[in-house]
Amino acid sequence: MRTRPLKVALLGCGVVGSEVARIMTTHADDLAARIGAPVELAGVAVRRPGKVREGIDPSLVTTDATALVKRGDIDVVVEVIGGIEPARTLITTAFEHGASVVSANKALLAQDGAALHAAAERNGKDLYYEAAVAGAIPLIRPLRESLAGDKVNRVLGIVNGTTNFILDKMDSTGAGYQEALDEATALGYAEADPTADVEGFDAAAKAAILAGIAFHTRVRLDDVYREGMTEVTAADFRSAREMGCTIKLLAICERSKDGASVTARVHPAMIPLTHPLASVRGAYNAVFVESDAAGQLMFYGPGAGGSPTASAVLGDLVAVCRNRRGGATGPGESAYADLTVSPMGEVVTRYHISLDVADKPGVLAQVATVFAEHGVSIDTVRQQGKDGEASLVVVTHRASDASLSGTVEALRKLDTVRGVASIMRVEGE
Amino acid sequence: MRTRPLKVALLGCGVVGSEVARIMTTHADDLAARIGAPVELAGVAVRRPGKVREGIDPSLVTTDATALVKRGDIDVVVEVIGGIEPARTLITTAFEHGASVVSANKALLAQDGAALHAAAERNGKDLYYEAAVAGAIPLIRPLRESLAGDKVNRVLGIVNGTTNFILDKMDSTGAGYQEALDEATALGYAEADPTADVEGFDAAAKAAILAGIAFHTRVRLDDVYREGMTEVTAADFRSAREMGCTIKLLAICERSKDGASVTARVHPAMIPLTHPLASVRGAYNAVFVESDAAGQLMFYGPGAGGSPTASAVLGDLVAVCRNRRGGATGPGESAYADLTVSPMGEVVTRYHISLDVADKPGVLAQVATVFAEHGVSIDTVRQQGKDGEASLVVVTHRASDASLSGTVEALRKLDTVRGVASIMRVEGE
Repeated sequence: MRTRPLKVALLGCGVVGSEVARIMTTHADDLAARIGAPVELAGVAVRRPGKVREGIDPSLVTTDATALVKRGDIDVVVEVIGGIEPARTLITTAFEHGASVVSANKALLAQDGAALHAAAERNGKDLYYEAAVAGAIPLIRPLRESLAGDKVNRVLGIVNGTTNFILDKMDSTGAGYQEALDEATALGYAEADPTADVEGFDAAAKAAILAGIAFHTRVRLDDVYREGMTEVTAADFRSAREMGCTIKLLAICERSKDGASVTARVHPAMIPLTHPLASVRGAYNAVFVESDAAGQLMFYGPGAGGSPTASAVLGDLVAVCRNRRGGATGPGESAYADLTVSPMGEVVTRYHISLDVADKPGVLAQVATVFAEHGVSIDTVRQQGKDGEASLVVVTHRASDASLSGTVEALRKLDTVRGVASIMRVEGE
Repeated sequence: MRTRPLKVALLGCGVVGSEVARIMTTHADDLAARIGAPVELAGVAVRRPGKVREGIDPSLVTTDATALVKRGDIDVVVEVIGGIEPARTLITTAFEHGASVVSANKALLAQDGAALHAAAERNGKDLYYEAAVAGAIPLIRPLRESLAGDKVNRVLGIVNGTTNFILDKMDSTGAGYQEALDEATALGYAEADPTADVEGFDAAAKAAILAGIAFHTRVRLDDVYREGMTEVTAADFRSAREMGCTIKLLAICERSKDGASVTARVHPAMIPLTHPLASVRGAYNAVFVESDAAGQLMFYGPGAGGSPTASAVLGDLVAVCRNRRGGATGPGESAYADLTVSPMGEVVTRYHISLDVADKPGVLAQVATVFAEHGVSIDTVRQQGKDGEASLVVVTHRASDASLSGTVEALRKLDTVRGVASIMRVEGE
């Protein structure tokens, strides 16, 4: 007796979806062997039905995604449309009509993860989304399964390939932001409108998802502090080099020292050249995880692209199909710890501050007094002066973001401080 | 109504076992929340019952491991004894008496993985062993689940921390092998008898396990070519530097170009300094995976030690407990591809060969002729001579190991070749 095939509905057939369909076809025998039953592409929902899609039976193509997820005979819905709607409604409808779901939709998961997980659980179905964070890099599964017996304290990640490409280019060539962005655009690493990447929205969505899983706590997109990397200058890279550092756009999810609260944030930061994340080049992604028992782990690989993302989607598809055949479901949302998500002001880290100051006696004493009054302890100061102007580079010890903000506000009010050229957090030490 | 606790029997209470017991106690609430039911340490089998074991109820301690696994009320047996027997019999007995098994036993898995998987499947139980390869680094789960929809072509790993510590020390200080080994021993990174590590036995067991999972093919320990790193010299490191390389002891599992066969091997090799594995320092482990769709991935972290290994064991424990509550089992052995495991002679790679030769005209021509006769194409030659003696350093293009062996055998017969100083494979390009 032949085993009943598992039916898969594909929502979206762009860069990722077409690759998922291609691999499902070309590797059908392997997938069947690994699942224990064949998988069958039962329908493909697209926006433009007329487009020629190589290797996809035209009779499977439909523009009516809702009807497809409502068919009732679909085992797994693969959602690679992206965006909030109609993806959200389609996924919820899929659960209600008996399907499990594999999604690559970071924006949706970051915004409505809790509701989607609840819908999956209510209907006894799986929701898997390895592809939503860092493309092909196995990260969701290691965090929610491999480290399920450990206590994660920190996740530090380069989770956006576009910005890493730009920053790497600035670092290696001395180029400015605009020049590096132009090259990224020309090479296809940046979109025509790069806002989601360079302003950190994409990374913030991933940070929310990672923090939620790592800390067993719901972290909403609004909880994530976000600062883009468009203000990073060639001068910042020179300053970083002088400290033995480079600059990366990092997603940082941290548990507080007392363990009672967590924070999630995205911003450019200096990290030591000796840190494993410092050598992550080009459009690659990497995520560094620190936990009580395992210590320091790093996961590295391509964070985007059709094939890599399809690899993650198909890994989930195999898992969900296996679960379905075994009459089981995988791990659902784990938010039992329900820790407080603290605002940015409570984040404690070090800072690198460049000030333009008047080149006259007593300025350093004035500046140092302001830091002291706000409880921010100075690690090193470097003073450079010429022609009546000078710059002061201050690197602090660990202090709260609120204290640092207070310090900077007060510094701006000093007559002798002509401007705050840059403020950069120092991480990964 | 309180959920029935899951009962865990711990076999072995050494460095790893005691850490597993400690975390099970101190993180009991977290584990219960993540599993959905409490886990209870129901028995601990040890060799020396008199030893004081902090935090473990003495009434749980027994020397009769067989009786413990036969109790019938045990849900999961955690085996951290190591070695072949009695571990093998205890695991098999555990399956027969209704328990699933989490093991950290690389030697046993490499030698008898197929039989153990069969026993698990026969009894409808789980066999998990994340801790058997590369300690805390999630690797088994990503390979057998995250990449289940992809085609892995190559696994290149630093999977032994002791030898990486020694080689890193040689590289960074110019020390010889013995000096670096002595330091590793003094610091506790090498055992009193370092044979299993430095001769590559430990890495070979891990290579067999990784190759089996990566290629869905049974790879036995005997199938793995093994060459230790005791012959690596400070001169080899100098040669490596001249090529822009360093030297690592690598476990390499490869699919042949035509896809029909695979090889697994462990030996020291030169890799470019730009390769992500080159910067893996000290006793850390890292595994580089190349697959069709995902591309290049790397997993990095501590490869040994009580806490890191316990992290991996507990991740498996949580997964197995969840499966058990859901009435399901995780993925079992996947050996359906059943590819041919080819011998070392069929491996194709590049070679760096140092020859001591007579410093007279015509030697290079003679040597080059031997390479040509064996079909091994030369990439570069560097000749250095003084006082009637000279050295020739030859770097080849890709050639089969059999051709290279034939070449070296013929070179040794030349009157003008006084000795073959070293042969080192060049990987990761």
